[in-house]
Amino acid sequence: MPAEHAERRARVAAAVADSGADVALITRLVNVRYLTGLASSNAAVLIGGDGGAVLATDGRYTTAAAEAAPDVELVKDRSVATALAERAAADGPVRLAVEEHDVTLALAEAIRKAADQAELVHLGRVVEELRAIKDDHELALLHEACAISCRALEDLYAAGGFAGRTEKEIARDLEARMYDHGADGLAFETIVAAGPNSAVPHHRPTARTVGAGDLLKIDFGAMYQGYHADCTRTSVVGTEPAYWQREIYDLVATAQRAGTDTLAVGVDCIAVDRAAREVIDAAGHGEHFGHGTGHGVGLEIHEAPALGQSATGTLADRMPVTVEPGVYLPGRGGVRIEDTFVVRDAGGPELLTTTTKDLLVLDA
Amino acid sequence: MPAEHAERRARVAAAVADSGADVALITRLVNVRYLTGLASSNAAVLIGGDGGAVLATDGRYTTAAAEAAPDVELVKDRSVATALAERAAADGPVRLAVEEHDVTLALAEAIRKAADQAELVHLGRVVEELRAIKDDHELALLHEACAISCRALEDLYAAGGFAGRTEKEIARDLEARMYDHGADGLAFETIVAAGPNSAVPHHRPTARTVGAGDLLKIDFGAMYQGYHADCTRTSVVGTEPAYWQREIYDLVATAQRAGTDTLAVGVDCIAVDRAAREVIDAAGHGEHFGHGTGHGVGLEIHEAPALGQSATGTLADRMPVTVEPGVYLPGRGGVRIEDTFVVRDAGGPELLTTTTKDLLVLDA
Repeated sequence: MPAEHAERRARVAAAVADSGADVALITRLVNVRYLTGLASSNAAVLIGGDGGAVLATDGRYTTAAAEAAPDVELVKDRSVATALAERAAADGPVRLAVEEHDVTLALAEAIRKAADQAELVHLGRVVEELRAIKDDHELALLHEACAISCRALEDLYAAGGFAGRTEKEIARDLEARMYDHGADGLAFETIVAAGPNSAVPHHRPTARTVGAGDLLKIDFGAMYQGYHADCTRTSVVGTEPAYWQREIYDLVATAQRAGTDTLAVGVDCIAVDRAAREVIDAAGHGEHFGHGTGHGVGLEIHEAPALGQSATGTLADRMPVTVEPGVYLPGRGGVRIEDTFVVRDAGGPELLTTTTKDLLVLDA
Repeated sequence: MPAEHAERRARVAAAVADSGADVALITRLVNVRYLTGLASSNAAVLIGGDGGAVLATDGRYTTAAAEAAPDVELVKDRSVATALAERAAADGPVRLAVEEHDVTLALAEAIRKAADQAELVHLGRVVEELRAIKDDHELALLHEACAISCRALEDLYAAGGFAGRTEKEIARDLEARMYDHGADGLAFETIVAAGPNSAVPHHRPTARTVGAGDLLKIDFGAMYQGYHADCTRTSVVGTEPAYWQREIYDLVATAQRAGTDTLAVGVDCIAVDRAAREVIDAAGHGEHFGHGTGHGVGLEIHEAPALGQSATGTLADRMPVTVEPGVYLPGRGGVRIEDTFVVRDAGGPELLTTTTKDLLVLDA
């Protein structure tokens, strides 16, 4: 792992050198984790244009830091960012690139006070952009997170007995199965939405009891070593689907395939959304699809690239993204189908969430 | 609830008027929740010195916002902070107080661009300071969060069968019991630390199997309607405690009582830490107590006031705080005893985490 982290830091160093800054102060915790392996609630890392790195954290994490990044110099200080800024400016004036989307006004003031030789310049989302393209180690972890998730869902489906349980109970059952299969945590708050609740895109599970004939929408994922799975399946409980349920299911499935078919290197991110949305628009349900088609996924559940109606940028090899159109009929029910894919150079996108997308009728 | 939120906003409005600013832009999501009742991942609220308020959020939360704050004008906009800043500066120059500990450099730039008539000034932690003192509604929720937590722990203890299970399994068992008793979520990642692992103050549960004679330290809490419980108990598994275990247990219990005995209106926050720490120092274990004695708790698991070695400020009526000294012997084991109390005007502090603090021997 240290070798992979060192490679990631070398890419940041190159960006720093290109930008005309002398050194970058990385404060976003997820970016610090990406560049050093240290998961913590208080750390920062300084990366010079020459590739040198210094990691700062407090006493709670120094042991973990030394294990995660034995090749990086470690500073123990509670005020991680100001300590590193002081360090950067110790030998005179320095152009210090900061993550302006993370550094607060208060922290910037503290940095300027601690290091008056430092001129703060903006680094931008350099690390987030690097993170969009995953290395082998990351793809292996994401694979595992998705595999755990799908095994858990398939177990849940196989166990049956949905009618009479509440959305909350089903959510907890699924979560326990993810832990049983090796999850370290949950990628996000599990969504279990039954009947009319399935029409709420980001419904929180309630005490509503599931009944026969309900659409049952489950949006969930395991976390594995920091990597997030993201998958949605919608099924019907106990009875053959009603005509309208089948109709919107097939529509969403078609839209999802249309979006998926665009996933290739060099394609504009916005084209993924457009392809899925055109299918739903053409069926007259455009107003019932009120969110973007997908997003990148990795150390965060939502990360670059965005695949929505105002998306910019293009897809590249090794980018994991979700494709997740939905149609939501207020008061009646909704369907979303979501997979996590990896965009690949050749052979089409790689599907990580392999649970069937047939419209299942679950045992009541 | 809207009446309580309106009272909270009136207090912020008074602070805004006092500070010389015209209007405050509250962007910290937990503060927006405190002032409007809206729990979301994207919202901001504008509060005028005259008490007028405008809430902004995006399409995902407009229904929830209208329900939570029917008495507040609602703006639907994805860029919540810039939309409100524009609104504030629509009629000409305005002194706009922002939460400088929350607003990033990037957001400040966007605000200045959207609202060039706005002069940004610092609001400080006005809302966090107000939040330290809870109203009746908040105290009731905190009571319930602590009651759920204690019921769950007592069930876990009563069920026994600790030896042979892993720390992770015990953590998940306790979490399931909290949900069974009505938790909405977990206040934080449950700590279950057995044997030598109990010497790590913030240990993450591992696959280590619990054995007879282990110290078993459990730091945990339920979340209930946004309010966080915080409780730690340490016990021994299967056998009578060893002499050294009993010795550090009694020491920590004495230190915890000493800290608790200081909890009264007008007492310096630092005095709580000093009282607990003196007991541990006097026993020669000062170096084995490497964290602060306590903290405020409410909508966040750690909030004002801090009760550590560099604490400032004084205790006030209706402040919930934890008291949680510990002694950790590296490689051997550690003890922490933590309760959530409410500081009260009269009659001593109110104990919310009522599970016994006797040194229990758990059924193996």
